[in-house]
Amino acid sequence: MNARAGIIVTGTEVLSGQITDRNGPWVAARLLDLGVDVAHLGVCGDRPHDMTAQLAFLAGQGVDLIITTGGLGPTADDLTVATVAEFCGRPLRVDDDLERAIAGIIRRWRRVPDDEELPSSLIAAVTKQAQVPDGATPIAPTGTAPGIAIPATGDLPPVLILPGPPRELRAMWPGALATAPVAGVLARRIDVVHQSIRAYGLSEPDLAQTLRRAETELPGLSALEVTTCMRDGELEIDSRFGRADTDRYDALKALLRQAHPQEIYSPDGASLDDVLAGLLDGWTIATAESCTGGMVAARLTDRAGSSSYMLGGVVSYANEVKSGVLGVPTALIDEFGAVSEPVAAAMAEGARRVTGAGIAISTSGIAGPGGAAPGKPVGTVCFGLAIDGRPTTTATRHFHGGRAMVRTLATVYALHLVRRALG
Amino acid sequence: MNARAGIIVTGTEVLSGQITDRNGPWVAARLLDLGVDVAHLGVCGDRPHDMTAQLAFLAGQGVDLIITTGGLGPTADDLTVATVAEFCGRPLRVDDDLERAIAGIIRRWRRVPDDEELPSSLIAAVTKQAQVPDGATPIAPTGTAPGIAIPATGDLPPVLILPGPPRELRAMWPGALATAPVAGVLARRIDVVHQSIRAYGLSEPDLAQTLRRAETELPGLSALEVTTCMRDGELEIDSRFGRADTDRYDALKALLRQAHPQEIYSPDGASLDDVLAGLLDGWTIATAESCTGGMVAARLTDRAGSSSYMLGGVVSYANEVKSGVLGVPTALIDEFGAVSEPVAAAMAEGARRVTGAGIAISTSGIAGPGGAAPGKPVGTVCFGLAIDGRPTTTATRHFHGGRAMVRTLATVYALHLVRRALG
Repeated sequence: MNARAGIIVTGTEVLSGQITDRNGPWVAARLLDLGVDVAHLGVCGDRPHDMTAQLAFLAGQGVDLIITTGGLGPTADDLTVATVAEFCGRPLRVDDDLERAIAGIIRRWRRVPDDEELPSSLIAAVTKQAQVPDGATPIAPTGTAPGIAIPATGDLPPVLILPGPPRELRAMWPGALATAPVAGVLARRIDVVHQSIRAYGLSEPDLAQTLRRAETELPGLSALEVTTCMRDGELEIDSRFGRADTDRYDALKALLRQAHPQEIYSPDGASLDDVLAGLLDGWTIATAESCTGGMVAARLTDRAGSSSYMLGGVVSYANEVKSGVLGVPTALIDEFGAVSEPVAAAMAEGARRVTGAGIAISTSGIAGPGGAAPGKPVGTVCFGLAIDGRPTTTATRHFHGGRAMVRTLATVYALHLVRRALG
Repeated sequence: MNARAGIIVTGTEVLSGQITDRNGPWVAARLLDLGVDVAHLGVCGDRPHDMTAQLAFLAGQGVDLIITTGGLGPTADDLTVATVAEFCGRPLRVDDDLERAIAGIIRRWRRVPDDEELPSSLIAAVTKQAQVPDGATPIAPTGTAPGIAIPATGDLPPVLILPGPPRELRAMWPGALATAPVAGVLARRIDVVHQSIRAYGLSEPDLAQTLRRAETELPGLSALEVTTCMRDGELEIDSRFGRADTDRYDALKALLRQAHPQEIYSPDGASLDDVLAGLLDGWTIATAESCTGGMVAARLTDRAGSSSYMLGGVVSYANEVKSGVLGVPTALIDEFGAVSEPVAAAMAEGARRVTGAGIAISTSGIAGPGGAAPGKPVGTVCFGLAIDGRPTTTATRHFHGGRAMVRTLATVYALHLVRRALG
């Protein structure tokens, strides 16, 4: 039986939908990779009563570790440490070393010289953030808030308290794993393997049908935990299993690849960006974008090291930029419209010409909500792909969804066009 | 006392961190705007035991409404309806009208003619998705999965079951509010006002100090629920209060604006994109991007109607594109380096020249992790702003964080440069 953890994300601004929590999923993924299952992830506001209820719920579910994120800041609504300490029945004390360390960080940030007194508002903030429950281990802060690892207290599991800013939390993670309370939980884990397969152009019902067939053909498949997730037109098939079941996973992977050879482009889970970076080795690429407005270029420059193949591109949102910068003939735009395959082809060829790239990919479409024309509903996007030494190819797709979704789906499609041409 | 709701997000792929849940925050924000507080948001996997535990936890917390999202699909791991029905002690039955409606939708999607039998795998999926707990109200599907509203059952609160795909969930929301079980909860709400203020260049500790001063100067401020949230360099100050406390909020707003007149750019909560769109009225704008790689252009084309001011831009990731397309003199790059204010200025002027725009904004920086040079650490970004009839201005900033964060912070800073110049 794997160790199971529960996560509590605090913050009224998360609960109210103002910001999307990035910590819960990140911590959950790290734990899973360590072989610790996550049973529950709860979000509650900065209210001690609600946070205590979450702590009691998780303890009642028998989890082996509780991790909290957020509520460690200097303001009065940051109540996590006091609430958890009370829940565990451990009095708070100010840790002198920690207080000095935090004061030093604040001095550097605020550029307060060592011989000058900190303003009283900051002293109060430092003292608040240096409080540690009795018997707990502080984890060195990377911002100003330290993490805290609390050992098991009677029937209550260990509690790991982490800060809310994602950067601080992630920087603190290795230190958190090394604390005695967390290391003790990790010592109980089994060896879990996590494998992914990525497909494009494959629907969830079609995959579900293949998985049902696999269940009848492959013995012992239920030992694998298989989940599927459709995102931005890509289907990700995730499997988790004990290392002893590797043969079973390999059989499933072979069956899936045989059933969907065109759609599965990444049998080992490598991201589209990574696959593309590998294929672009030795090439240079440029973009010419209208409806995607720079999103394809932004995606192509996401990866460190992308400058070895990505030269740049032109966002030709206005027709004058299509003709003036990319050299698309005005007559072509007049005859076929800006959202047309001939214009998309001329945009890609123009991008190659002005940047000198070996490959250029273009988008021209109607992201909506307005702009529909007869035969060209909102969601229509034309693509052009110009590759040195090959005839330019084009494609037209109709995407469903709002403006943002159409732009995202068109961006992903453009990248897959390049991948297929080079693969 | 406001009505309180609890939200349960199901899906192993959310819990494992593969995808970020967008439904919980969206539903929470809608409920808050309706005057319903959200007490807890829980995420659990597609395991009946864990989901039942969440339902029991929320019922035990005395919430007035439980909303679930996800787990309504055709696959075997979609267990929400069966689990909730069992929890409420309501047997499932197949709703014939619903079954016909879903079959019709599937036929249109799969282009199966009316006189042709559906494949057996699809018939099973249709029947599964047409199951409704006894006494519950189905909500018409927008994808293939219907929503379901279950009335209170004994001590258990009403449960609203919604699908996982965000687009389907959002399209179904008005219909869900109109069902008797949900309408009954809404009838008990009080009139809650939600107001936001946005600032740039204001730190959370500085704001916290102002808020402490406000507490001493303004009577009755505790009637407002004020939360703050720092995101991508922007500080959002959110307040919720009963309509009777509007005068108190206005006093707080006036005090904040007086304390931070430079930083507060949106006293009514309008987004940067909306503020900028207003300021750009009558202007045209273009971009010249290096390290942000198209992100500024993508942001400027996010809004419907942005074509009235956004002409386009050049992503000059490679130096050859800076000189070849934007006309930045090679000697300038050789002398000062690509990441320099003179080059950023020439990029912005080049973007104006080639696009004909009245305004151009440029970025050139070191997003990392490599590329640092003496005096130019990772995170260094230079900006240029060229405006018709004005001398070109430049700026250099050092951003902290990883590659993605540096690119995001640089994008936001570029947009604020334009805002300040026009504001």
